[in-house]
Amino acid sequence: MTRGDVFVISAPSGSGKTTICREVLSRVPGLTLSRSYTTRPKMPGEVDGVDYYFVDEVKFDNMVKSKDFLEFAFVYGKRYGTSRASVEAIVSRGEDAVLEIDVQGGGSVKQAMPDAVRIGILPPDWETLRNRLYARARDSHEEMERRLAAARAEIPELAKYDYLVVNDDLETAVRKVEWIVRARRLRSQRMIACIERILQGTGEGPNGSSNG
Amino acid sequence: MTRGDVFVISAPSGSGKTTICREVLSRVPGLTLSRSYTTRPKMPGEVDGVDYYFVDEVKFDNMVKSKDFLEFAFVYGKRYGTSRASVEAIVSRGEDAVLEIDVQGGGSVKQAMPDAVRIGILPPDWETLRNRLYARARDSHEEMERRLAAARAEIPELAKYDYLVVNDDLETAVRKVEWIVRARRLRSQRMIACIERILQGTGEGPNGSSNG
Repeated sequence: MTRGDVFVISAPSGSGKTTICREVLSRVPGLTLSRSYTTRPKMPGEVDGVDYYFVDEVKFDNMVKSKDFLEFAFVYGKRYGTSRASVEAIVSRGEDAVLEIDVQGGGSVKQAMPDAVRIGILPPDWETLRNRLYARARDSHEEMERRLAAARAEIPELAKYDYLVVNDDLETAVRKVEWIVRARRLRSQRMIACIERILQGTGEGPNGSSNG
Repeated sequence: MTRGDVFVISAPSGSGKTTICREVLSRVPGLTLSRSYTTRPKMPGEVDGVDYYFVDEVKFDNMVKSKDFLEFAFVYGKRYGTSRASVEAIVSRGEDAVLEIDVQGGGSVKQAMPDAVRIGILPPDWETLRNRLYARARDSHEEMERRLAAARAEIPELAKYDYLVVNDDLETAVRKVEWIVRARRLRSQRMIACIERILQGTGEGPNGSSNG
């Protein structure tokens, strides 16, 4: 069984990352979202194991101590982490894992898993990002300015990612992420079984020695 | 102007490489076939500069001596070569170049241009390759067996390429090559102008220092 790949997807708030990820996950077979662990309370409608794994501080602390996390972060007083075992469970069965995490987490994952493919989602321009955040209008003015300041710091970090996708049109952005994921599956490391199958038809093994 | 990429596409005879390349070139804007130089005679219907650059032995020799070729090969008594200047002309204007060459040539190009992206096209299995070659029936039995023996040697070399595409269905194979080409354009090295444009909107330069 060829192992799957790990795709890290990061973006500033308001870039449409969550919508893009949901669409790509629904269109590409064999792609699974790795759920994060969090200590924040479950919100109405959220389901444990679907949206997040909801755990208490003690459980989270124990996971940190046991080095269970590929990355973890402290955001607005709550903790979020990606479990190494959850990702391993996905890739070891040959599926690709999607990690929807922030740029700091993306850095940690790249250190732990150098083959991880990191994709940054960008707004088309600064005005659009600002307008989208204000249009959602679910946060206070101060909160939105804080998110914009965070985006200002995150965007240069995203430039270190492997791929960048500008979300100026949702459908186009979804297709671009799809191309990256689907192209990755055609890397020769993942196609070795194919080469072997073809060469078996010649009656010789892949090393050129005859079986007969 | 961001430079374009170089895509090397190789395959054993009978894998459908030429048809796949033609389709991909017609579907993906900004992708240009780099024509090879050859000393073989022009066949009916062929056009100089479209199918090949047709040159005589003296001109070819001079190009070899001037190190004008990224790669060149001797096939059935005739010579074929990829000119460095032709490829450079394409990528320096921001387009991507496609080189339809054999695996040996692919090795030389990778040495000269380590960033070149190499794509191998494979038949689904050995029987299909044999049947396709015989169905074309334009060569003698000996010639076809010679091509099969060459394919047998080439396929393990193709395993060293970056990507492998199995041509079991033409439309699917064309789309796979498209994904590889289109995903490559989303590499962050090619998206730096985007990051800079977004950050300009914040009123600050990419290095974080204020312009105001």
